[in-house]
Amino acid sequence: MSGQERLIYLPLGGAGEVGMNAYVYGWGAPGKERLILVDLGVTFPDMDSTPGIDLIFPDMSWLVQNAHRLEAIFITHGHEDHIGGLAHFWNELRAPVYCRRFTGHLAARKMEERGIDPGQIDVMEPFPEAVEAGPFTVAFLPVSHSIPESSALVIDTPAGRLVHTGDFKLDGAPVVGEPFNAELWHDIASSGVQALICDSTNIHAETPGRSEATLGSNIRELVATSSGMFVATTFASNVARVKTLAEAGRDAGRSVCLMGRAMLRMVQAAVETGVLTDFPPVISHEEAEDVPREHLMLIVTGSQGERRAATAQLSRGKYLGLELKADDTFLFSSKTIPGNERSVLRIVNAFSEMGVNVVDDSSSLYHVSGHANRPDLEAVHQLMKPKMVIPMHGEHRMLRRHAEAAEAAGIPAAVASNGTIIDLTGDRPAVAGHVETGRVYLDGTQKVGALDGVVRGRIRMALNGHVMLNVIFDEEDEPLGEPWAEIMGLAETGASRSSLVELIEAETAQYLARTDEKVLQDDDKLDAALRRVVRQVAVEEIGKKPEVTIVVSRLA
Amino acid sequence: MSGQERLIYLPLGGAGEVGMNAYVYGWGAPGKERLILVDLGVTFPDMDSTPGIDLIFPDMSWLVQNAHRLEAIFITHGHEDHIGGLAHFWNELRAPVYCRRFTGHLAARKMEERGIDPGQIDVMEPFPEAVEAGPFTVAFLPVSHSIPESSALVIDTPAGRLVHTGDFKLDGAPVVGEPFNAELWHDIASSGVQALICDSTNIHAETPGRSEATLGSNIRELVATSSGMFVATTFASNVARVKTLAEAGRDAGRSVCLMGRAMLRMVQAAVETGVLTDFPPVISHEEAEDVPREHLMLIVTGSQGERRAATAQLSRGKYLGLELKADDTFLFSSKTIPGNERSVLRIVNAFSEMGVNVVDDSSSLYHVSGHANRPDLEAVHQLMKPKMVIPMHGEHRMLRRHAEAAEAAGIPAAVASNGTIIDLTGDRPAVAGHVETGRVYLDGTQKVGALDGVVRGRIRMALNGHVMLNVIFDEEDEPLGEPWAEIMGLAETGASRSSLVELIEAETAQYLARTDEKVLQDDDKLDAALRRVVRQVAVEEIGKKPEVTIVVSRLA
Repeated sequence: MSGQERLIYLPLGGAGEVGMNAYVYGWGAPGKERLILVDLGVTFPDMDSTPGIDLIFPDMSWLVQNAHRLEAIFITHGHEDHIGGLAHFWNELRAPVYCRRFTGHLAARKMEERGIDPGQIDVMEPFPEAVEAGPFTVAFLPVSHSIPESSALVIDTPAGRLVHTGDFKLDGAPVVGEPFNAELWHDIASSGVQALICDSTNIHAETPGRSEATLGSNIRELVATSSGMFVATTFASNVARVKTLAEAGRDAGRSVCLMGRAMLRMVQAAVETGVLTDFPPVISHEEAEDVPREHLMLIVTGSQGERRAATAQLSRGKYLGLELKADDTFLFSSKTIPGNERSVLRIVNAFSEMGVNVVDDSSSLYHVSGHANRPDLEAVHQLMKPKMVIPMHGEHRMLRRHAEAAEAAGIPAAVASNGTIIDLTGDRPAVAGHVETGRVYLDGTQKVGALDGVVRGRIRMALNGHVMLNVIFDEEDEPLGEPWAEIMGLAETGASRSSLVELIEAETAQYLARTDEKVLQDDDKLDAALRRVVRQVAVEEIGKKPEVTIVVSRLA
Repeated sequence: MSGQERLIYLPLGGAGEVGMNAYVYGWGAPGKERLILVDLGVTFPDMDSTPGIDLIFPDMSWLVQNAHRLEAIFITHGHEDHIGGLAHFWNELRAPVYCRRFTGHLAARKMEERGIDPGQIDVMEPFPEAVEAGPFTVAFLPVSHSIPESSALVIDTPAGRLVHTGDFKLDGAPVVGEPFNAELWHDIASSGVQALICDSTNIHAETPGRSEATLGSNIRELVATSSGMFVATTFASNVARVKTLAEAGRDAGRSVCLMGRAMLRMVQAAVETGVLTDFPPVISHEEAEDVPREHLMLIVTGSQGERRAATAQLSRGKYLGLELKADDTFLFSSKTIPGNERSVLRIVNAFSEMGVNVVDDSSSLYHVSGHANRPDLEAVHQLMKPKMVIPMHGEHRMLRRHAEAAEAAGIPAAVASNGTIIDLTGDRPAVAGHVETGRVYLDGTQKVGALDGVVRGRIRMALNGHVMLNVIFDEEDEPLGEPWAEIMGLAETGASRSSLVELIEAETAQYLARTDEKVLQDDDKLDAALRRVVRQVAVEEIGKKPEVTIVVSRLA
């Protein structure tokens, strides 16, 4: 054995961002630890940094290289930032997957879509049921969050008990699922907690979090006092909220129609797995067309302004036969995730132009967060009395603030960002090394590295436009005819009011006529020289330096 | 005369967005009104919708076509969304420009930069000084905002007095400039106000606005109790805030250094025009290098996360010899404008990694808005008792909410978005027609229409990547050699692990070999067919449909 056995924590994703969670735990001699993985999520692209990309994964190379040491994968809940990468990496990891029933339902669908046997998924009952995975014994502890059957993990190790909270809040009345059970948490902690690895998302929220149940009467009143059609959007996976909304509709005598594939799929999954009972009856969008609008309520996808979701479609006009009109009400029972503000506001303004009354979260009456606020997190620290706190699930500023809060209460803590190996064995967290981490993009069907240059090329074309120039040389290395240019993403005419393409062709032709043979015969020199001429024309004419692709064809 | 003379209002920009303000007033027979223009601003591009674009202007075509009717241009204040388009359109409008001294200083610089004689600018003293412009008599009424010498306009017309507020707040102690003078406003209104054309930006803020002066003691205390270097950012043009920050630094015994070109330029302009007096002494960044960090305060540009501004530079490491370290403090004395959240958070997290204490606006202690909130706007409605209120300067949802507030108080109002001609002559606003409006982009040195396809091409390349394919045909219309492909922004290999470029070349070569002469001889058919082959290869290999440029060269 190459050294003393140790207990390690290694975030590969999620510690440095809200998104793409992937946390490794290990026990054994350094470099030979047996491993488990908690969650394998994705994050979403944006036009600024990742145009055209479909999904962003954590770079799993380290774990793939060490897959022979991986005992099992545990998924805490079904949000994309915890489950979205599973089916994309399972073939490279090939370990059994454990999760609760609702999460398993979602995971199985994703695995099937990628041709992987969903039999790899083992459904777990809640704590005290536990499963052994190498040196670890792991149980699923129900927590409240904004999707059914979210779980913390109670991970027993040779170095003591770990509690990995997953995403959670303290909710005494979560509408769907079990209320927070402080006594159970206290019991679990009674034999001592070596480390609490803890959600940090809402550490900057200074007041205690509010229960999902506080929304019911507000939403009921809003629906009951609205004339016209009532439309509400929320995250499709927030099944408790969808239920609250649907019940408010029913109580106001409205027929309820769910719109958007994700919304229908989530409610169906929740009903099929038994987590959602007595959901009000719903009607199809075809049926909804015949219901007088003051008796109709739609619950729709697209709270973040996603272009193709139902909310955005409705903001552009008729969608599946239904259309918003003056004096209808549209409720965002959701918060706008940073980065989505412009998309959401575009929709709000479109609704405003239609005369629709838009109600958003600014009053705090119609939305609560699924994450624990700072006072709640501090209460959990006190309840669990762990030997140390490791903040996870957050941007660096959140991890840091969370560590400060723990330290202020006398609990050792460490800010461990992606790639940091933390030794949890002792009395306080100790940095034990680093592994390479980063991001991998799903682009179409292919995984491309963040540094492969694919995205860089796209961003450059988007900022600068693209000129393609084509030159043919005959058997004697003499230009055959004039160069041929094409442009994309550039103004057709500039300062001189002549065609930019024709000017580029004329200037490059002149260059070829006057330059010496040494350049003409050297592809690299010729490429560089022509590129310079093209850019110079573009700068003079339109004040831009475009991307340039030169194609030299030689008949010789 | 073609009809009864009338008083009209026509927003060309700014009524439907916060940005690119341009408001026209006219008096005369319909279609023959003599016109004035108030403000000519820009808005800023984003990667989502306008990649590579430098500035966005309102489409001024209507006014350019009617430039012979334009008597004068009035600029209310020096913010880019009010002044930024002036120098870009002045040659097409050629009317005298009136503004206050500080605004004129900024405007003159912009005109000079574009080779326009700044002698076109006439500096005005505040009300009661007034200037005649055709049928209008216009005076500048000082208001508080977040830049010196902001003004409302008192516009006397044959149909009565208009008050165009510009951007404003009610501030009894604005630190720089004159306090709000309710008596003067009341006097101005005493002879009756036909219409109040009024800022709507903060209509959704439900509490009365706070004075700039409320920040002084908070900022002083924060600076005084901070160890390490203290760095603060705010909008460079918010000269009052810069002064408050600098005074707090001086009071804490710190040397003050301004960083970022805009910051230096604005303070200099304010000093030169006499609006800023007794500004604390400042040192250069070279001098700052020798000051112990606990005695140093930097005031820097880049509060919105702009990539090249001082804040972003400092978040990436050393900037002009200065570097942030653990236990330094960085204050955002600013609010993040929607759309800039990601950029700002990226910087906050970089500072967090350095161990810098970041203080933002979440406490409301270190920033106040420059716009009047709803209760303030309602107070102004009551003070001025206009015959009608026309909300301006805001997104549609803001204009609408503002109109509702006025109507609720019994004052007729109209939501007039860009391009709507409103007749202000009667007892209530009446829609009198519409003109074409839109956006024009500055791209490099050229103005391009928003619908010209330039930006569309760029976005497509950014989302889909770009394949260029080059085919040469000999004198007999036979393919000469194999097609030649280049890619940009695409993965180099896909499903088959072979080179995507080589596969495209091979498949298109095969296509050329098997297709009939009718296609080979028809450029359009050939283009379409090759495009299809290229896309098919790309879909099979990498699951993407790229943009494709086909260049066919015929030696015949």
